[in-house]
Amino acid sequence: MESLMIWLPGILAIIGLIFMWAKRTWVLKQDAGDGKMKDISSHIYEGALAFLNAEYKLLTIFVVVASLVLAGISFIVPTTHILIVVAFIFGAFFSALAGNMGMRIATQSNVRTTQAARTSLPQALKVSFGGGTVMGLGVAGLAVLGLSTFFIIFFHVFMGGEWTDVHQMTVVLETLAGFSLGAESIALFARVGGGIYTKAADVGADLVGKVEAGIPEDDPRNPATIADNVGDNVGDVAGMGADLFGSYVATVLAAMVLGNYVIKDMGGDIIAEGFGGIGPVLLPMAIAGFGIIFSIFGTLLVKISSNNDKEAQVQAALNKGNWVSIVLVAISSFFLVTWMLPETMQMEFFGEGLQQISSMRVFYATLVGLVVGGVISAVTEYYTGLGKKPVLSIVQNSSTGAGTNIIAGLSTGMISTFASVLLFAIAIWASYAFAGFYGVALSASAMMATTAMQLAIDAFGPIADNAGGIAEMSELPSEVRERTDILDSVGNTTAATGKGFAIASAALTSLALFAAYVTFTGIDGINIFKAPVLSMLFVGGMIPVVFSALAMQSVGKAAMDMVNEVRRQFREIPGIMEGTGKPEYDKCVEISTKAALREMLLPGLMTIGFPILIVLVPMVLGYENPLIAEMLGGYMAGVTVSGVLWAIFQNNAGGAWDNAKKSFEAGVMINGEMTYKGSDAHKAAVTGDTVGDPFKDTSGPSMNILIKLTCLIGLVIAPILGQDMEMATTPDDIEEVTVLEASEEESATAEFTNSESEALETAAKIAKATETSEVVTESSEAELSEEIAKKE
Amino acid sequence: MESLMIWLPGILAIIGLIFMWAKRTWVLKQDAGDGKMKDISSHIYEGALAFLNAEYKLLTIFVVVASLVLAGISFIVPTTHILIVVAFIFGAFFSALAGNMGMRIATQSNVRTTQAARTSLPQALKVSFGGGTVMGLGVAGLAVLGLSTFFIIFFHVFMGGEWTDVHQMTVVLETLAGFSLGAESIALFARVGGGIYTKAADVGADLVGKVEAGIPEDDPRNPATIADNVGDNVGDVAGMGADLFGSYVATVLAAMVLGNYVIKDMGGDIIAEGFGGIGPVLLPMAIAGFGIIFSIFGTLLVKISSNNDKEAQVQAALNKGNWVSIVLVAISSFFLVTWMLPETMQMEFFGEGLQQISSMRVFYATLVGLVVGGVISAVTEYYTGLGKKPVLSIVQNSSTGAGTNIIAGLSTGMISTFASVLLFAIAIWASYAFAGFYGVALSASAMMATTAMQLAIDAFGPIADNAGGIAEMSELPSEVRERTDILDSVGNTTAATGKGFAIASAALTSLALFAAYVTFTGIDGINIFKAPVLSMLFVGGMIPVVFSALAMQSVGKAAMDMVNEVRRQFREIPGIMEGTGKPEYDKCVEISTKAALREMLLPGLMTIGFPILIVLVPMVLGYENPLIAEMLGGYMAGVTVSGVLWAIFQNNAGGAWDNAKKSFEAGVMINGEMTYKGSDAHKAAVTGDTVGDPFKDTSGPSMNILIKLTCLIGLVIAPILGQDMEMATTPDDIEEVTVLEASEEESATAEFTNSESEALETAAKIAKATETSEVVTESSEAELSEEIAKKE
Repeated sequence: MESLMIWLPGILAIIGLIFMWAKRTWVLKQDAGDGKMKDISSHIYEGALAFLNAEYKLLTIFVVVASLVLAGISFIVPTTHILIVVAFIFGAFFSALAGNMGMRIATQSNVRTTQAARTSLPQALKVSFGGGTVMGLGVAGLAVLGLSTFFIIFFHVFMGGEWTDVHQMTVVLETLAGFSLGAESIALFARVGGGIYTKAADVGADLVGKVEAGIPEDDPRNPATIADNVGDNVGDVAGMGADLFGSYVATVLAAMVLGNYVIKDMGGDIIAEGFGGIGPVLLPMAIAGFGIIFSIFGTLLVKISSNNDKEAQVQAALNKGNWVSIVLVAISSFFLVTWMLPETMQMEFFGEGLQQISSMRVFYATLVGLVVGGVISAVTEYYTGLGKKPVLSIVQNSSTGAGTNIIAGLSTGMISTFASVLLFAIAIWASYAFAGFYGVALSASAMMATTAMQLAIDAFGPIADNAGGIAEMSELPSEVRERTDILDSVGNTTAATGKGFAIASAALTSLALFAAYVTFTGIDGINIFKAPVLSMLFVGGMIPVVFSALAMQSVGKAAMDMVNEVRRQFREIPGIMEGTGKPEYDKCVEISTKAALREMLLPGLMTIGFPILIVLVPMVLGYENPLIAEMLGGYMAGVTVSGVLWAIFQNNAGGAWDNAKKSFEAGVMINGEMTYKGSDAHKAAVTGDTVGDPFKDTSGPSMNILIKLTCLIGLVIAPILGQDMEMATTPDDIEEVTVLEASEEESATAEFTNSESEALETAAKIAKATETSEVVTESSEAELSEEIAKKE
Repeated sequence: MESLMIWLPGILAIIGLIFMWAKRTWVLKQDAGDGKMKDISSHIYEGALAFLNAEYKLLTIFVVVASLVLAGISFIVPTTHILIVVAFIFGAFFSALAGNMGMRIATQSNVRTTQAARTSLPQALKVSFGGGTVMGLGVAGLAVLGLSTFFIIFFHVFMGGEWTDVHQMTVVLETLAGFSLGAESIALFARVGGGIYTKAADVGADLVGKVEAGIPEDDPRNPATIADNVGDNVGDVAGMGADLFGSYVATVLAAMVLGNYVIKDMGGDIIAEGFGGIGPVLLPMAIAGFGIIFSIFGTLLVKISSNNDKEAQVQAALNKGNWVSIVLVAISSFFLVTWMLPETMQMEFFGEGLQQISSMRVFYATLVGLVVGGVISAVTEYYTGLGKKPVLSIVQNSSTGAGTNIIAGLSTGMISTFASVLLFAIAIWASYAFAGFYGVALSASAMMATTAMQLAIDAFGPIADNAGGIAEMSELPSEVRERTDILDSVGNTTAATGKGFAIASAALTSLALFAAYVTFTGIDGINIFKAPVLSMLFVGGMIPVVFSALAMQSVGKAAMDMVNEVRRQFREIPGIMEGTGKPEYDKCVEISTKAALREMLLPGLMTIGFPILIVLVPMVLGYENPLIAEMLGGYMAGVTVSGVLWAIFQNNAGGAWDNAKKSFEAGVMINGEMTYKGSDAHKAAVTGDTVGDPFKDTSGPSMNILIKLTCLIGLVIAPILGQDMEMATTPDDIEEVTVLEASEEESATAEFTNSESEALETAAKIAKATETSEVVTESSEAELSEEIAKKE
């Protein structure tokens, strides 16, 4: 049974996908309303597909080029197998497929939600959350299915389906990294392109429609209104979905890589522990697989019963489902960890040597991830929530003008990094203290295990938002809009907390990838006291800042294209303002699509190009591989630290500005006076929101992709840099085991011979300083180790 | 003669101070104008002194507390001598003295500049630049005099005025670090407090005066106008002066520390090379000393001849003086480096071992610093300059409202990090490649050598600005204001480039301190692959962001205090608007002073408290010193990388917004239409400037202090963390030399026994992993090293 565990994650994923299909069938069976509603909904549906199709064309070119590059690498680097290209293509395909399914269901659920809202709020929630559930399960199911299938294939191709040695497993996982790289590449297009799309459409629609023509939001006379609604799906559904798909796959992969290194630290063979000797490698997939099932449980709990329920009840229903799935994951993690891992493991702690780690400590590490995932959402909620102190302070500062509103919003976003970063720091520290970098990766895996549930909560928001838009455009009775507004309002909160979850997951994923990178390259660590490494830390730190600026500028340019098109239609189409002329919605969709894909090229190139440059330039300068590996590692750390900071800063500032503006809808008390929409203070708040929009929907969320993709590219490059290092050149693994046994003997002796060992170290350092780049065979190392042991 | 070199820097500093005094006498002899001018000027002078006096009270308390803490440390840590307290107090005193002299001369030159402007522009430049020169020479002279005097004293106290060993010199320099810490602490008060003061007064004066009461800037009826003019001096003169004083001292100190390590790498004794065996330690001071003299040459070249000259000619005169002094420093560095350093040195490159470095390569490193100093100013000038593309783009974006103006400004600041950071990265990389971290520190020293000249250029701006204010308030003929406006306009440009210089110097200083820190603690480097170190990198990265937010919020709060006071005076003082009632200027000065000093406490505490916490918490948790040292190092790196980014971002965004607003004064072409002050686009630009003000004058420049002070505190803490390490516990340095000789023998052998040395390293690693925290004596190490050497 134990050795069958390799099939279980895939089976659980298939169960998830079957449930998804059933849910999808149910949603599509719901009434899609009548004439005008159907008409508008089909415009949105087609617009979304138009974006996807345009994106696919670009994607295909990208995938072909990247595949060729990868194929080239696989010819040059002996340890990189050509199968990485296959994995890459499927990773891209699965991510695109998940996005496609999500977009389709979201743009079909919206009108059904509107129709359901005509009867009752509970039914509207059921339909919209049903759509979200389909999206969530589709993403999670395909991710786990794809990853586990390719793992099984590569496990059979490279190892014959049986444990051979750590080195072969490394090849399996290096090849599997292609799947993750493919998934994350799609996320770049979906998240960055989608982010530009959604804000270009939004700003374009608002600037000409609301401001110039004076017509309300979602008015069908506005040619950009369909593009705007498409944008909600493109950004918040497809973008978020691809982002989490990528995080999910990358986290599990990184945990598997580090699991393999646990086996290495334990002597390279733990067949005796069952699970075909690959328990630590299988565990992350098992946690993910069960996470899908528990997410299904969670989604089943999300319902309300009364038509008179308000935001609080809807939010409570979502929270119940979420927390139940988190607790179930925690419980299942306990059983999985204690069952699948050896009771005590050896793990190498850099600078501290091998330590004995009990499986319970690995479980504690998973708890760290689950807690951080929850708390980070709460922190985000505090800094961006309606009625909370930070948002109220921005509201107060709006009374003295746009300048003070902006300063207040910026400083709110900046201050919010304090709690979030401290939380990350503690999470890294604690999960590492419990179980090394394997612990860090598993804490991320546990956090990501409820991805299906998180995404269901996330995707339901834009569906409800769209449903409201359709109600408005179809001129339905106001109670319909009121019901969808309740859902939309909850959706805004979940959008903010979802972004907190996404950046937390991206940060932990990057750390896990970073750890996997170091082990892949075989370097001793990343020493920022080496000037080239330090300078790359600086360069890495700068990238997220420049990337954000480019993304913001892109929104501006794309929005200008949209403004010009809307102006043209208002001018040229007769009777458009009277509602007799039909606006050319598709033209606006096309403009936004083209602009988004055009504008994402430069930031995309930067993301992919810099890591490659950082490897190529020093190679040309004749630097040695280990130093280059450290430099790239420094770059990755710089991107991650700075990227996390700028993501939190931009997301929270944007969210706070948004809700500060929204506060005026119900009226706010400023200097003892109730102030409403249309006041000068409200206008200042609108200015703040204009700045916040690209922050929270374009540049902020794209940081996730930037940091993950950077670390993934590093991971794929790693074997090149590790070429002349230990791991890749081990001639025979049996000898490796000998070394380890010898070392253990040694370490027992060494305890009592402190000063001698110091001396050895000094000698070794001097020797290392003059070492040539010749390949060192481990056998001679082992012999000498023993000699020294005898001497003492 | 060679051994007398130790006295030379001090003598050169005294020559600089004598020249300064002569210049000061000349400036004070100039006509200070008549009745009303004198009256206003004395208000500003007294306001400035009032701020200084209030600051001194707070400073005294701070210095006493900090001295007690330092004294405590010196009792606990055997290698930290009680004399560090004396050095600290004098460092604080010298910095405060330099600031005091600068403020006095600046607030006395302003009215004399106004009076000179009544006769001619060349004369007005001569007086205002004369005032700047006094400031610059005062700062540079006192810095070099103080540093070299204390070096001589400690050299005699600890080493009897003769070279003994590396260890004793380390004690000398550790104690000297107190001087630097004292100086930088004052900078914290001057820069952060001053930054808050100047913007609170500025915003307060504008909000009530210009906006509410509708009276022009610098109108004597506005009670806050004197505070506003005092603020220019407090922020731009005293703040910038203390900032550069701190950078100057810290850079030279760090270079001296690394010079000592060059001696260590060369075997611990280079008496044969002359200069009493301390050439590499003396060199940085010598470069600084000659820099003062060449700065004097430079200042003598700054003059114009025609009364019809405009901005371009004034700027050209400043540039000529600046570049001549830079070129002279380069030439003198060549001679000093080749004369004072051994022709070939050995330097330890982490991970690469000892390398032979010729003195010419050290000279190349100094050139790197001089070039970077110049280029970074040019980059700053591009991103913030009138008529340049970035500013023009912000102007264009003002036409669609404040929102787009803000986005354009933010993204300009963000994009500007690209070139600046790449430049830093290249500078670090290149100067390190030339001559290790000693090269990095000397590149910073060379750049800082022209501090006197830089500061003269910098301080002349606010003097001219004040002169214009006095002309306005005294209702002098318009040609006077026109002349001072020319100087003021050039001053705005030099203020922006000066900020570029200040952050570049702070960044290089921090790197040099960082390198000195690593050598002081005796750790092998800072490995960010250790999770606790990585988490501190995250925390460090967050600090500048939160610090900036706190500084911005402080400006808001302090400005509100000012607004309320001005409103009260307008309400309560009869005839104030008619010019018959006299406003209570001193009340406003007091408000601004109190608010500034109150608001700087939290960011100040954070700056000082975090490094201490990062040491104390892990100590309580039982972590070992080397790991804590790495954690603190990770924190320092995080603060530096993130601080540099946020400084550049905020300074350049603020500068660009400012000039975008100024562009409207002469009129700008937007969408084919000339647009002027008062237009909607101009209003949007004013909003941008409101956001930019605290960016460029408060939070941005205070990053310099944050990163330097963080690294300095680290340096002072370093001996505590290095306690159980090699350097601090050497019982006898003769043995150390033995070790080194043995090692050299070894290394020659090791070249041909690669695999063996690898094995030794492996064994050493395992041994280290189980090592206890017992103190290791070097003698046993030496014995064993020899044993191993024999064995081979």
